[in-house]
Amino acid sequence: MSRTVYVNGAYLPEDQATVSIFDRGFVMADAVYEVVSVLDGKLIDFDGHQARLTRSLDALEIGNPLSDAEYLAMFRELVSRNEITDGMIYLQVTRGNPGDRDFAYPDPDTPQTVVAFTQAKPGLADSPAARTGWKVITVPDERWGRRDIKTTQLLYPSMAKMAAKAQGADDAWLVEDGKITEGTSNNAYIVKGNRIITRELSHDILHGITRAAVLRLARESQMQVEERGFSVEEAQQADEAFVTSASAFVMPVVEIDGAAIGDGAVGTVAARLREIYLDEMRRTAI
Amino acid sequence: MSRTVYVNGAYLPEDQATVSIFDRGFVMADAVYEVVSVLDGKLIDFDGHQARLTRSLDALEIGNPLSDAEYLAMFRELVSRNEITDGMIYLQVTRGNPGDRDFAYPDPDTPQTVVAFTQAKPGLADSPAARTGWKVITVPDERWGRRDIKTTQLLYPSMAKMAAKAQGADDAWLVEDGKITEGTSNNAYIVKGNRIITRELSHDILHGITRAAVLRLARESQMQVEERGFSVEEAQQADEAFVTSASAFVMPVVEIDGAAIGDGAVGTVAARLREIYLDEMRRTAI
Repeated sequence: MSRTVYVNGAYLPEDQATVSIFDRGFVMADAVYEVVSVLDGKLIDFDGHQARLTRSLDALEIGNPLSDAEYLAMFRELVSRNEITDGMIYLQVTRGNPGDRDFAYPDPDTPQTVVAFTQAKPGLADSPAARTGWKVITVPDERWGRRDIKTTQLLYPSMAKMAAKAQGADDAWLVEDGKITEGTSNNAYIVKGNRIITRELSHDILHGITRAAVLRLARESQMQVEERGFSVEEAQQADEAFVTSASAFVMPVVEIDGAAIGDGAVGTVAARLREIYLDEMRRTAI
Repeated sequence: MSRTVYVNGAYLPEDQATVSIFDRGFVMADAVYEVVSVLDGKLIDFDGHQARLTRSLDALEIGNPLSDAEYLAMFRELVSRNEITDGMIYLQVTRGNPGDRDFAYPDPDTPQTVVAFTQAKPGLADSPAARTGWKVITVPDERWGRRDIKTTQLLYPSMAKMAAKAQGADDAWLVEDGKITEGTSNNAYIVKGNRIITRELSHDILHGITRAAVLRLARESQMQVEERGFSVEEAQQADEAFVTSASAFVMPVVEIDGAAIGDGAVGTVAARLREIYLDEMRRTAI
């Protein structure tokens, strides 16, 4: 079945969904995005993702052409038209199409470009990988300095993902100044005893919406949370490791650069956090 | 007059020139580009730009869908159809449209996307700015680590250009670890006595095609060239400063962060290099 996608107010067959070659998103990567998961036909943490969308747009001085209510209606329309039970909605907003290419921003009146599409992922929350865990490699973090803004400048994460695949791993963790920043498209965590350790928020990492929810739920469950950087060596010696993202939820990591974490099986803390997170998200889905 | 642009083998009116929303160039900034100047209807340093295009594509393992001869014929067709006397040709090659979004690269058989368009700039080589010089500010270099690959991840240079405009300057020089790397879309130089000083080639800067030609011509003219980094302070105390790029050629810089360079007027070395460069490029244009 051909998908129906959204482009600037129109619902179109996916093979007719295009943007101008002059769009700032195409020639300048002048664009931000969000990915919202869908479970049982409902949106997961919609408010959190909308808040970050606004934050990313504000940081780049890109206007927001739609209200939260309009985004919500559009997402629901896409879910409905594409009969999505489990999957994701990808949303991208660019600075628009000025009709030509220039490093300088166009007139602020230039309409932003809004693109959204669904990806069906039957059984998304029941991923077999969550039962066996991911293997990750580490590579230097060569991304730009404002990783807190969720831009489409994703070439390096893409290259790192390919490096991981080439080594038979599932993902790469990025390392800067001796500390892990995060995964290619997720936040990174280790567990030592009763403490969950993850890098503190700054310009160096994405301010994960799933991260915020998981840390809140962990604290509510009386787990200790320590927000600080950690090295590859510390991670390899941890009891557990995991990542969080909007589409992987809480995903255990069982191997880092070939070294098994703990006993090499999925850890109890990661498994428990995944369960708590999914329960809460299903409960609050809209 | 509406431009005729090139998209994947077709010559189209500019307002009909589109790419898929799933194109890797749109969702991942998985794309490289080149800008070739046109003077008197002829292409400037075509071979140099083609060599760098190949280098950028190879670095990212993106196939090159056209031969140099095909690019040349296409560029000439665009110049002819758009009656360009002086101006630029912008070329962008992306990893193509896999039909969906994924961090992992698509099948290597996925056809690359090739887009090209002209920008008319009457009197390009006779820019009034070359007689008065540019004012630049400095900002931290927050770009990714592989600036030697000419990708479309241009958001930060764009932000820096806007910061310069906001301060009444023409461009920004980027500073990392106390040394200037380069300008937002050009290589940076200072002159001390008979020495031309510019940062050495590495992953930290673009390997400018104009840079290579200007340094070659400088050496042939018995000027001394020193390839090393320099600080903002050293630049402010230099006799002259300038930048080079495919479309600005050799552009004098007369002020850095509010400090006049030398006597604040266009320097003789920069002016002479601009003349030598333009003479040679017009002579060898094809």
